Amino acid sequence: MSRRAEAPDELVARARNGEARAIGRLISLVEDGSPVLREVMAALTPHAGHAHVVGLTGSPGVGKSTSTSALVTELRRRDLRVGVLAIDPSSPFSGGALLGDRIRMSEHATDPGVFIRSMAARGHLGGVSRATPQAMRVLDAAGFDVILVETVGVGQSEVEIARLADTTVVLLAPGMGDGIQAFKAGILEIGDLFVINKADRDGADSVRRDLRSMIALAERPEGAWRPPVLKTVALQGQGADEVVDGIDQHRAWAEETGELGRRRVRRARDEIEAIALTALRARWGAVGDGADIDRLAAAVTAGESDPYAAADELLAD
Amino acid sequence: MSRRAEAPDELVARARNGEARAIGRLISLVEDGSPVLREVMAALTPHAGHAHVVGLTGSPGVGKSTSTSALVTELRRRDLRVGVLAIDPSSPFSGGALLGDRIRMSEHATDPGVFIRSMAARGHLGGVSRATPQAMRVLDAAGFDVILVETVGVGQSEVEIARLADTTVVLLAPGMGDGIQAFKAGILEIGDLFVINKADRDGADSVRRDLRSMIALAERPEGAWRPPVLKTVALQGQGADEVVDGIDQHRAWAEETGELGRRRVRRARDEIEAIALTALRARWGAVGDGADIDRLAAAVTAGESDPYAAADELLAD
Repeated sequence: MSRRAEAPDELVARARNGEARAIGRLISLVEDGSPVLREVMAALTPHAGHAHVVGLTGSPGVGKSTSTSALVTELRRRDLRVGVLAIDPSSPFSGGALLGDRIRMSEHATDPGVFIRSMAARGHLGGVSRATPQAMRVLDAAGFDVILVETVGVGQSEVEIARLADTTVVLLAPGMGDGIQAFKAGILEIGDLFVINKADRDGADSVRRDLRSMIALAERPEGAWRPPVLKTVALQGQGADEVVDGIDQHRAWAEETGELGRRRVRRARDEIEAIALTALRARWGAVGDGADIDRLAAAVTAGESDPYAAADELLAD
Repeated sequence: MSRRAEAPDELVARARNGEARAIGRLISLVEDGSPVLREVMAALTPHAGHAHVVGLTGSPGVGKSTSTSALVTELRRRDLRVGVLAIDPSSPFSGGALLGDRIRMSEHATDPGVFIRSMAARGHLGGVSRATPQAMRVLDAAGFDVILVETVGVGQSEVEIARLADTTVVLLAPGMGDGIQAFKAGILEIGDLFVINKADRDGADSVRRDLRSMIALAERPEGAWRPPVLKTVALQGQGADEVVDGIDQHRAWAEETGELGRRRVRRARDEIEAIALTALRARWGAVGDGADIDRLAAAVTAGESDPYAAADELLAD
């Protein structure tokens, strides 16, 4: 298979025409940090902004991939095109388990209305990849109605996904440690919907009850969204329809209140900042440059300068 | 108790003289993001760089606070002054559990050679606070020999603590889920020492064996540090001496190989970057400014601009 360099505009046109190979190729450019990314993003942006981005997160073992698969099935039943980005933690030790999960998604592999892609979360332990918003834009411009971003929820990655998504679904399961422990990491603040998967197991109702009382305890302003707590058995597809209904309701609420627009502007702001910061880091780290950050850091370490003075020098160019 | 505004220089002099109130006051200035911080850091920096920073992390329930307390006891036995920063996750729902843990530290409360401070990890879910490196500098300049930074290990916060510390200790415990699961989040890459606490429980040896074989499997260059796997029963103080010996050995290795210097320069670089970025964000977000980031983000969201063009505009001032 020869892989000639294709013009970004041509690739974007083919991706918008629904060609899976072109979509995959664009996401590879994103992953590789290709120099043509700037051109690609400029070509994509006018066509983006239509997809609803759903973040799906939860601890290892709650059944994220199975739930994703069940949601895809339900969304297809409603005739919606679905793009899936599965963000893998970067640790080389977890590859095997995730690969096993992916196999369950294979039922969608031949459906042209579904596009599935695993992405490595490089440089971020369990975190959401820097490339994720760009890959989302590829799928968005390619006309997918819903983009599911699935990531293992270990701390910070949950916050990152909540900042990226229009609607964040937090998955839990019974038997994953006692209630209080499971909620310790602050997931209450980030979930728009909570889903207790494996609800046919003992303890599902008690997890639900605990979660509901904690949600009831949390202070929220009038008119704020009150996250529902749903139950699913994803392996049997049970409850996926209620979850999709819940996502729809959250979307309607978010559109009505302006929250959707605010989230999307914040997402764009984060992305612009990340690009600007990368550009600045390249400038700051330039070899032979007068304001070399390593030289400044060494001076601070030696007690010859302080971090504020060093930051001033860095920003002075 | 009246709290008159004290001059930063005076506070720094009193902190260097070992006055706990002055040290606490300086850390409060750090936490509050006081406008005099710039002056405080300039006064502190020449006196810093002597303390050894030990990061201590692990999942909820492995016994972090008990381990911290046991290490403090052992370090005091060796006549070393110890500063402890306990980074609390920001979730309001976890306050109670942590408070309970803190009480165990009370045996050190009257020891003038020990300073203990809890800090909220604001804005970072389970993460290490932005203020942590500055608080570390306060304790360092105040002449503490060892600074223990304890944080709950949920994903990203482990990476953050490893970037801050000279030596990172990862705590585990038997019965916290099967071996592979427990190591999933990539802790192998960040631990300089692994400590299996609650080693009197069933399963400690099997966790140790699994961990050791994974460490053996990981590729590392010649002369690289090979993390030891130790066992403790922190509640009885068992094994704390071996942990402190292990920290000493890692420090000696890091000094000899230049790794210590590299880590400290990286820490200073991160800190300078964070300060520079905060300054830039203030500039970017300035109301009425031509390059207002919110205006740019709205344009990207509307498809009228793309993130690269927006970043260019931001950086052009």
